Amino acid sequence: MTTDFKIRSPLFISFEGIDGCGKTTQINLLKEFLIQNKCEVIVAREPGGTEISEQIRNILLHSKHKISPVSELLLFSAARSVLVQDLIKPALESGKIVICDRFFDSTLAYQAYGRGLDLEDVKQCNQLASNGLVPDLTFFLSVSLELSKRRMENKAQFDRFERAGDAFFNKVINGFEQIAKEEPNRVFKISSENPIQDVAQQIIEKIVSI
Amino acid sequence: MTTDFKIRSPLFISFEGIDGCGKTTQINLLKEFLIQNKCEVIVAREPGGTEISEQIRNILLHSKHKISPVSELLLFSAARSVLVQDLIKPALESGKIVICDRFFDSTLAYQAYGRGLDLEDVKQCNQLASNGLVPDLTFFLSVSLELSKRRMENKAQFDRFERAGDAFFNKVINGFEQIAKEEPNRVFKISSENPIQDVAQQIIEKIVSI
Repeated sequence: MTTDFKIRSPLFISFEGIDGCGKTTQINLLKEFLIQNKCEVIVAREPGGTEISEQIRNILLHSKHKISPVSELLLFSAARSVLVQDLIKPALESGKIVICDRFFDSTLAYQAYGRGLDLEDVKQCNQLASNGLVPDLTFFLSVSLELSKRRMENKAQFDRFERAGDAFFNKVINGFEQIAKEEPNRVFKISSENPIQDVAQQIIEKIVSI
Repeated sequence: MTTDFKIRSPLFISFEGIDGCGKTTQINLLKEFLIQNKCEVIVAREPGGTEISEQIRNILLHSKHKISPVSELLLFSAARSVLVQDLIKPALESGKIVICDRFFDSTLAYQAYGRGLDLEDVKQCNQLASNGLVPDLTFFLSVSLELSKRRMENKAQFDRFERAGDAFFNKVINGFEQIAKEEPNRVFKISSENPIQDVAQQIIEKIVSI
């Protein structure tokens, strides 16, 4: 990119999509780009990101006990609430750019569309947990279930979610599609089946355009 | 009690009130009475009671980090949701009597009346977390703040809630009073400043009367 551009800050950006969609890769590339352009950047992941929410993450992803969809919803919400209060809000207030690996759209896609919880219940929990905070920009990295599975093939261990079946993940993908359709001004669907640098370029162009 | 009586089962009984109100003592006496009368009894405590909810209890009561009222609400709700699903519902379905040391009235008293969260938000979370389950009987053991503090004087260590100030506990006590007024058919206020055996007798009389 040779033209002049300006990156707005503070800025709250979330990345969404199923595991294997390339979130980590794209977040790292974006972080690098922003730092090169003298932005102060914080990357957080959901669930997790603070001591308390990492403890909750551990329960959610690695518990050997069955966790009901509602308990899952409440645990994710609790973890998000801590993350927003302790990390995201203070960072935004001090003018930083915050990139979040998953935010409330994941809860809607996984717990409502995927697990079948009532959409309104999940939205209310999301509202409570995020304390009204909404990402300025959300990138939904879209990838077919087949490709995401191929990308994860070499992973040694899978968490509770990664072990769920195809039917579940197809519902989750459909959830993300719905969210992107319903909020076209915030959520941008990008095909993550394209080359990594092309995807990164699309993300950067969007960020410098707002 | 020399007259004939019958104890209904399954039965779900919760005990409420501030720390130092005598819940533990009364729950133990009631449990003993029920066992002597050939009832199958399970005692659970909130937050806690299952492996996952004990992990959440540990975060809630012993975290060195500040936890916001909303995070507190969501964590208590998550712990309750697990407890209801894994312990209380199965026990009631198999005909047992479940005694719970705190249930959703505590969330209303502490997080809404005490911390000042919106009453409707808390009620919605309570509804989600308890999956519609409501105690058949709730005993609110009423005690003055002064007496509760005297009873706790010899305690070596205090948790996050026990360290909160008088103003907070007065709001919580007021919360329990409101709940008892609003639901006179479920919540029974008993003065726990009376002799232990008198309180126990009142509790038993109520249980055999329903």
